[in-house]
Amino acid sequence: MKSIDVCLSPDLIHLFEVKHKVVVVVDILRATSCMTTGLAHGIKSIKPFANLEECREMKTAGYYIAGERNGQKLDDFDLGNSPFDYMQDDLQGKNVAVTTTNGTVAIEKASGASQIIIGSFLNLSAVSNYLKEQNLDVLILCAGWKGKVNMEDSLFAGALVERLQNDFLNACDAPLLALSTFQAANHDLLNLVLNSSHAKRLKKLNINDDIEFCLKFDEYDVVPVLNNGEIVALKELA
Amino acid sequence: MKSIDVCLSPDLIHLFEVKHKVVVVVDILRATSCMTTGLAHGIKSIKPFANLEECREMKTAGYYIAGERNGQKLDDFDLGNSPFDYMQDDLQGKNVAVTTTNGTVAIEKASGASQIIIGSFLNLSAVSNYLKEQNLDVLILCAGWKGKVNMEDSLFAGALVERLQNDFLNACDAPLLALSTFQAANHDLLNLVLNSSHAKRLKKLNINDDIEFCLKFDEYDVVPVLNNGEIVALKELA
Repeated sequence: MKSIDVCLSPDLIHLFEVKHKVVVVVDILRATSCMTTGLAHGIKSIKPFANLEECREMKTAGYYIAGERNGQKLDDFDLGNSPFDYMQDDLQGKNVAVTTTNGTVAIEKASGASQIIIGSFLNLSAVSNYLKEQNLDVLILCAGWKGKVNMEDSLFAGALVERLQNDFLNACDAPLLALSTFQAANHDLLNLVLNSSHAKRLKKLNINDDIEFCLKFDEYDVVPVLNNGEIVALKELA
Repeated sequence: MKSIDVCLSPDLIHLFEVKHKVVVVVDILRATSCMTTGLAHGIKSIKPFANLEECREMKTAGYYIAGERNGQKLDDFDLGNSPFDYMQDDLQGKNVAVTTTNGTVAIEKASGASQIIIGSFLNLSAVSNYLKEQNLDVLILCAGWKGKVNMEDSLFAGALVERLQNDFLNACDAPLLALSTFQAANHDLLNLVLNSSHAKRLKKLNINDDIEFCLKFDEYDVVPVLNNGEIVALKELA
């Protein structure tokens, strides 16, 4: 039977084997929710950068540039880190370069995996159905907050573990921990996340609408996958 | 208000400040449960060693030596890592040197803290009452399993966070994660732990009685504290 594991923080990735696995990178607030939203709304590709300056330079290569630092949109950037920014009609068919605090770091740490895909509540079913079809072990990599474990990514991990319980075996205790937290909170996810520390930080930025949107299940039927350094919708690869 | 934080793995300790804090080290299966049991039964002191050979050498200094590797008692050692080993009458007033896979490592990583104390379900109330009386922030450091997050230590963290909720503020999301897991599992802790990976490993060693005992609440009214490299009952220091 295939196995499923959860790495609750990028700072624990050295303990996990990524080779021959599908790694699902998750940064619910808000990087991977934005990527999911953007590809579902017709953005052609999203190229992640850990370095802000490298991302900024992509403007000259014809990319739209998207970024935040500590939850704030950067003034000279085309998009911030709100999923609503990624719904604009003029982005259809366009390439976007993005830099974020935690999400991009997590994607880089997953390098070496058989495949890196992007997960969020917005595409939970699409991701879980895809994983069931593959013949590979799964590692969910939570982006966390500056290395620390966070609530919303752990909850997503639990939600995905729940969907995969019949097809995968838990590789260690982290899937069980995430699952039990998710199942305890499932009736009121929003409340638990709003009381978490990251959401409290974001609350000061007045983005309650973003948080509420990022916790919606199955808005989009898209599986974003990393291909040659860019994230594209899986169907684009077929 | 004082703050409470949870470090779910020793491999995340670099993200936390231990200075000016009480660090509660927890390794439920079985190091800190054994230490609690031993001091409650009259052992004078317990000296932890990460290195097995250094521990073994303490025999010549008149110490009883206790140790395991990967859950197995070492042949030439006086005690293994079962809490029942720590109840023997002939240990009263004696000094014990102990080496364990994960617990000792966690204690070493807590160095620099204002105080290091030892937590387990067996002394949950004693520890929580003590922490309420101190004027210091608290960090619960879970020993985990070879760097990975484990279920039983996370559950203890949740139980202690629950006891301290009215007197401490959560410093980040990890206390909330531990708390919600504990509260979801509270009615059937044993079942959740028996289904966790560490317990499954231990099950092969035929120590179900140990596991059941280590999940008992408040068997002992003792607060073990690290003092000059040795763990002693707090009342011994008074």
